[in-house]
Formats: sequence, C-alpha cells, structure tokens
Amino acid sequence: MSKHLHLNAFLMSVGHHEAAWRLPESDPHAHTDINYYVRLAQTAERGKLDSIFFADSPVLMGDPGRRPSGKLEPTVILTAVAVQTSRIGLIATASTSYNDPYNLARRFASVDWASNGRAGWNIVTTAGADAARNFGLDDTPDHRLRYEKAAEFVDVATKLWDSWDDDAVLADKELGIHTDASKVRKILHHGEHFRVDGPLNLPRSPQGYPLLVQAGSSEDGKEFAARYAEAVFTAQQTLDDAKSFYTDLKARTVAVGRDPESIKILPGIVPIIGDTEEQARALDEELARLISPEYARKQLAERFKLPIDDLDLDSELPEDLPTEDDIEGAKSRFTLIVNLARRERLTVRELIARLGGGRGHRTFAGTAVQVADAIEDWFCQGAADGFNIMPAVLPSGLERFVDEVVPILQARGLFRTEYTETTLRGHYGLARPANQFDDADALVAAR
Amino acid sequence: MSKHLHLNAFLMSVGHHEAAWRLPESDPHAHTDINYYVRLAQTAERGKLDSIFFADSPVLMGDPGRRPSGKLEPTVILTAVAVQTSRIGLIATASTSYNDPYNLARRFASVDWASNGRAGWNIVTTAGADAARNFGLDDTPDHRLRYEKAAEFVDVATKLWDSWDDDAVLADKELGIHTDASKVRKILHHGEHFRVDGPLNLPRSPQGYPLLVQAGSSEDGKEFAARYAEAVFTAQQTLDDAKSFYTDLKARTVAVGRDPESIKILPGIVPIIGDTEEQARALDEELARLISPEYARKQLAERFKLPIDDLDLDSELPEDLPTEDDIEGAKSRFTLIVNLARRERLTVRELIARLGGGRGHRTFAGTAVQVADAIEDWFCQGAADGFNIMPAVLPSGLERFVDEVVPILQARGLFRTEYTETTLRGHYGLARPANQFDDADALVAAR
Ligand SMILES: Cc1cc2nc3c(=O)[nH]c(=O)nc-3n(C[C@H](O)[C@H](O)[C@H](O)COP(=O)(O)O)c2cc1C
Ligand SMILES: Cc1cc2nc3c(=O)[nH]c(=O)nc-3n(C[C@H](O)[C@H](O)[C@H](O)COP(=O)(O)O)c2cc1C
Repeated sequence: MSKHLHLNAFLMSVGHHEAAWRLPESDPHAHTDINYYVRLAQTAERGKLDSIFFADSPVLMGDPGRRPSGKLEPTVILTAVAVQTSRIGLIATASTSYNDPYNLARRFASVDWASNGRAGWNIVTTAGADAARNFGLDDTPDHRLRYEKAAEFVDVATKLWDSWDDDAVLADKELGIHTDASKVRKILHHGEHFRVDGPLNLPRSPQGYPLLVQAGSSEDGKEFAARYAEAVFTAQQTLDDAKSFYTDLKARTVAVGRDPESIKILPGIVPIIGDTEEQARALDEELARLISPEYARKQLAERFKLPIDDLDLDSELPEDLPTEDDIEGAKSRFTLIVNLARRERLTVRELIARLGGGRGHRTFAGTAVQVADAIEDWFCQGAADGFNIMPAVLPSGLERFVDEVVPILQARGLFRTEYTETTLRGHYGLARPANQFDDADALVAAR
Repeated sequence: MSKHLHLNAFLMSVGHHEAAWRLPESDPHAHTDINYYVRLAQTAERGKLDSIFFADSPVLMGDPGRRPSGKLEPTVILTAVAVQTSRIGLIATASTSYNDPYNLARRFASVDWASNGRAGWNIVTTAGADAARNFGLDDTPDHRLRYEKAAEFVDVATKLWDSWDDDAVLADKELGIHTDASKVRKILHHGEHFRVDGPLNLPRSPQGYPLLVQAGSSEDGKEFAARYAEAVFTAQQTLDDAKSFYTDLKARTVAVGRDPESIKILPGIVPIIGDTEEQARALDEELARLISPEYARKQLAERFKLPIDDLDLDSELPEDLPTEDDIEGAKSRFTLIVNLARRERLTVRELIARLGGGRGHRTFAGTAVQVADAIEDWFCQGAADGFNIMPAVLPSGLERFVDEVVPILQARGLFRTEYTETTLRGHYGLARPANQFDDADALVAAR
C-alpha cells in the first residue's frame, strides 16, 4: 500500500475568510453554538479525516465590529464533540505563556479520557500585548523567552502525564487496594519558570498523553518543533518554500535524534471549491468584495509597525519595512506576507484580498479535481505529509471538501477509505509514547 | 403554591463513602469514564433535580491506594453532560487560588453557552500545601489572604462576564457590522492581586454569568458568601447548628444589602436508603467494615496536626487539640468534626466510621419515607432552602433517591414535578443578573 496523506480540518466559526459571515448562507451566531461545532466535526468524521483543530488565543482578537469575535474555549468544544463522535481526532490550541502546567496537563488528559484517546494539543506561545494584558503583564514576553518557557512547560506537562504508570490502577476490592501507590510518583520539578511537585490527579490517559502539535515557523519555532512536535501546522505560499520548510524541519528532527517519520508536516490550504473553475473564482471574488479594506489596512499597518498612512491601498508595500528580527510577535508569518507581496508585486489592496481568505495560508480556488491535484502535487513532491484544510466558508466548504475532494483522493489511493485506528496518534501513524519513568525507579512515592 | 425545596446532587465517582468502590456493584474505573457521569446526570434529570455538582482540587487527594483517586476535570465532565441533557443545572468547582481569572471566566462562560444557561461555579480557595506545591508555592497561602484574593477574583470575573452588553451582537450582514464595538468594553482592572484589561473573548452568556456558589463556612467564608454567593453548600450535623448557620448567613446577606431570598442554603445529607430501616443500617455497617481504620486514623491526625500515636482507635479524642484559629486549611470542617466527636463522645474508631460516609456531612440511614421526613423536617424548620444530596454509593444511591424519595417529596408538594424553567438560576428561583455596566457609559471602547 502506498503511503497515505493526512488531513486535518482547521475549523473557525463560519470559515477562514474574514467576510464569510456576510454570505447569505452563514449563521452569524455560529461562534457561540456548540451544536454547530458538533455538526462540523461529524461532517469531518464522515470524510474519515484524521482530526479537527481549533486555534485559540486568550484575548479578543481583531475588531469585534468586523467579524464574529470571541469564541468558545476549545477544550469545551472538543469535549462536546468527543461524546458525539467516535473516531475523529480532536486538537485544541492552548498557550504556554498564559496557562499553569498543572491545570493544562489535567484538562488535556481529561479530554483524552473523554474521547478515548483522541486528544491533541497545539502548543503555542501567543503573540501580542493585548493577550499579555489579560494576565498581569504590560507587554508580550520576548519571543525567545516565550519559547524557552514553552520548552520547560512541555517538560513539566509530559512528566505529569507520566506520573502514573499505565498499570498503576489495580482495583483490588478484596484487598482494598485501589491503586499501587508505588506506581504513582511526584515529579518534583523545580525549574527556571515552573515549580510543580505533582503527581497529576488522573491516571495515565489512553494515549499516554495528547498528540503534541506545534504551529510556529520562526527559527525558535522550528527548533522547538524538531524537539517536541509530532505534527506541525505551517503556512506556505509556494511549492519551493514548502519543500525547503519540509526538508529543513525533517533534518532538524533527525539532528536531535528523532525518526523523521515521527513528525508530520501539514501546510495549510484554503480551498474554494466550485462546480467549475469560474464558479470557484466568482465565490473568491464575491468574498473579496465583502472585506472592509480600511479595517484590513489598519491590521496590516499594525503587523508592519507602520503608521497607517504609509500604506496606500493602490501601491505596493513601502520599501522600508522592519525585518523579522524587529518582530516580537508572529515572526514567520510576517516574513511570509512580505515575501508574498514582493514576489507577486501586489498592491496593498490586492494583498488584502489575498490575506482575507487564510491570513497568509495558500488559498486555492478551483474544482474538486483541481483541489485534489493541488494536494497530490505537494504531497508527491515531498512538500507535505498532509494538509491543514481551512475552508473559506463553513459549513459548506467542509461539506464540499468531504463529499467531492475526499472521494477523489480515496480513488487515487492517497487517503484512507475507512478508519483503521481508534486514537489520534493511530490515525497519524504514530506510536503511543512510552512512559519516561518506565525504567526508572519510582522517583518519590506519591506520599 | 407552597415554597419548593431545592435539590442538588453532589456526585463523586462511585459515591461519597470512602469504601463504596469495594462493593460488588461498584465500577472501580468509573472515575475516568465520561459516560458514567453522563448517565448519573441523566438520572438526576429524570428526578427533576435542580443541579448536579462536582467538587475539585488541583492535586491528587488522599492515598491513591485506598480509594479511586484523581478525577476528570469538572468543566470537561459538565460539557459532556451539557450536550446530553437539556434541563439539569451543572455546577463545577474551581479554585480562585490556582487559576487565572481570564481563563476561568472564559471557560465557565463557554460552559454556560454550551449548556444554554445551566452553568454554575462553586468558588473555593483550596486548602492544603500539596495543592500549593503544584503551582510554584511552598505552602498554602494564609486563610484570610485566600479569601481576599477570592473576592478580587470574583470581581474581575464578573466584570469580564459583563464586558459585553447583552445586545452587543448585531450580525448586520448588509452593513458588514457584526458587533457594536461600543457595547464591548475593556475592564482595565488593575488591583491588588490581578491585572486584567479585557474584554472577555465571548459575548455575554445565556445566564449573564454562571450561578455563583460557595462552600466555606468559616467566618471569612460566611462573609464572602454573604457578599457573593447565590447558593451555599454547607456541612451541618444537627438541626440546631443548621438553623443557626441558616439564620446567621441570611442575616449577613441582608446586612450587605441583599435580599435574603437571593441566597439559597443547602446543607449536605448522605442518604443510605434501604427497603427497611434494618436494611439501610446493614449497608451502613457493611461500608464501615470496608474502611481501612489505619489510613483514616492517619488522615485524622493530619487534620488535627497531631502525631498519629496520639490517636488511640478505642479512646475518645485527646483533650488537647488545636483550635480553629490554628488551622489554615478547612477551618469550619475542623470545628464540626471536633464538636461531633465531643458531643456524641465517640471513640476514634466510631468517629472514623461516621466520617467515612460524608467526611463530616450528616449521614442518614433509613427508608425512603424516613429520608423524606428528615429532609422535610429541616426544610420546614428553617434550617435549609434545599439539600445537597450526597449518595454514599453510586449509581444505586442516586437511583433510589430519584425513584423513591423524590416521588414522596413531590406528593407532599415540596418538590417540583416538572421543570418550569430552562436555566440553572431559573430552577433556584433566582433572577438573571443585570449587567453592572448597563447604566454606565462604555468604560473604554474595545479598541
Ligand atoms: C495553522 C496555524 C495555526 C496557528 N494557530 C495559532 C493559535 O491558535 N494561537 C496562537 O497563538 N498562535 C497560532 N499560530 C502561530 C504561532 O504558533 C505563534 O503565534 C508564534 O508566535 C508564531 O510563531 P513564530 O514566531 O515561531 O513564527 C498558528 C500558526 C499556524 C501556522
Ligand atoms: C459541600 C462542600 C463542598 C466543598 N467542595 C470543595 C471543593 O470541591 N474544593 C475545595 O477546595 N473545597 C471545597 N469545600 C471546602 C471549602 O470551600 C474550602 O476548602 C475552604 O478552605 C474551607 O472553608 P472554610 O475554611 O471557610 O471553612 C467544600 C465544602 C463543602 C461544604
């Protein structure tokens, strides 16, 4: 059997396009409707996708006037989905800058239990001063420090998840021994950023711990991914860029002593599907028309740290822009956007239209066959292990993908026709992690 | 119509009795089985109960050897229940000492959305050094400080929940205005313990915010309850103590300018139900036999801050015990236990048997009629607005309560026969809270 590709559905209220909510079909209250998300997940499961995914930031992002703002906390959404689906993987974003490791480890382990082994954690460090100001800080901690803290955070979390041996629970009613206390251990982590004694207050979960996912593509981000990530989301505009990223990250993974197959790389694609190419383009154009250019211009100016007047809607970007080094927020996304504008010589207005769909992810308008071709092309050329499918409009974009594109990929032998596994790691062909304390003596008995 | 009483089911894996898991009927893996909790909640809903409730602490409590230890995070359980029930209220415990207000406010608002207005938050300050050591501290912060921080925490949370006006979302597709940004405001809270700018990243939830519940009965605890709580859980052993507590807390509530009807007081009761009184007692005794006295003695010694050898299983408590002032953990529970032992002149062994069922809550073994009588008695004598039902054994204890005791209370006109409301506050006869910023000008526009 030839190698299969992996498909993750990146879900965002009524779709990734910032103007999607203005289409007649869209429910502008979907972002607070739990049953809406359950239905989306069920559609993805019907398509045998590997997983669904929710982005997140503990802050009100963007202008609430312009699009549906705010959303349900992702582990809450995933739990509701968990008990109303049986196979699809469930990935939620949570920040290492604005959570306590104990609470986060416990919540994700709980979702792994609730879903019978289908939980994943997209590990992010959260850019932006607005988020920092919801957590007692004045400004975003600096980029390197955020990643340093993230590394220690993941160390603490995995130790907590491993603080119970898999066979700790005996449930011996006769002897009155519920759990073998010598198989539950304190972790006594006293580090630079965190002090956590443990043990976790939950037995080791079905997957051992949630799938570890990562989504930053800066230098620090790639180093972090190589060390910890089992799946990586990334935004790539061109086949060449995607191939370099893929090759680079696999090499870094090997360099730290890991199997390159143990990390799955999933670039984003925003498919806009039509019965004909013309119909797809027409939808793309209709969406572009519904964007507010003034608001988008303001956002671009903030990203580039420029006064808004320096951006003229009908000219190219100014020559004089900051470099990635000057950016403490999302470094790799900044570079991607500058490169895109320069390469295609886009005016600010054109750039806004291109970013409206996927905020920097590759958009692709075409027929189902063309979308399948685009996916097959990158996959076969070594640019991806799979894709982060980001429908511009929901639920219709996901339904079309599942009903029209997936069958083509299946017919070509590129994608599963049935689930063969029950866990999220299983879908991605990854092994259940061993317990890091398995061969060690219990560090310290629980009490 | 005479006033109805309120019933909350306090659920704890296989039951409140510490030896419940050793009974043949008990599933010793229930504590990690989400569907088990969903079934319990559906049973409670069948009984038209006001709500279910989960206690919690971010620490592994007690000896994992002795009883099922660790549990799923309560908001995860409640979310799974929310989407598989339609009326029952859903109350989860969360700590003000070991959470960030932004994350907690957002998670409970998400559960309120997911349940269509059925979320409640049991606000606790979390006693114990073991919990502190999971969050970077050496020891429990002192009792008074914990309550001070709790008060500021609740202030921040309610401001966040009120940071969106109820009518902020316009969803005007034509004009491209999703939300009226002037109705979403930063809260700019810069206090003693927390700095949080806001706004929350969620529209105001169906109930405005979750029902605020409280469960500490020390002096500080009662002051806090009078100011903030809409429902109060308490452990009371005698009718007299329960009446004083009730009268005292209602008076304190009036003293801070609130309506005494706006706070519902629910003492705990651990019913052990038999077809006959003898059968109930036999179950009680069987459970007592299954307790490990050595382990319970160790726990008692820790609570009393005594060397274990000072507690002789077959003697009364020593004369010389600390006073409530010396206790930085759970103050009121300490006093309750000492008083119980002294009043009834219990040996340590007898005290252990009494505490095994409800850790200080009133246990009551008898027929369904006797349990209904006990409930009616306290309710009619002004000791309670309702009860926290704490089945010693689950699921059977809840099933018997719902199938046998509830119909008696309904026949006596003391309890609802159908839900008349859809929200948790509705069940308790409480009004949806007004938005504190309603009459104020928007403090500061969101951006
Ligand atoms: C598909 C995808 C999803 C992402 N989701 C989030 C998210 O939900 N929350 C977040 O803070 N960052 C998210 N990021 C961005 C980064 O993880 C993070 O913001 C980081 O600061 C930027 O990474 P870099 O500076 O290493 O490039 C996402 C990135 C990608 C490619
Ligand atoms: C029915 C009931 C449930 C409680 N549940 C919790 C709980 O889940 N978590 C917790 O930390 N404390 C719980 N408590 C105890 C107190 O809220 C808290 O621990 C406090 O320190 C003790 O209160 P006090 O010192 O004011 O008496 C509960 C108390 C009662 C009566």
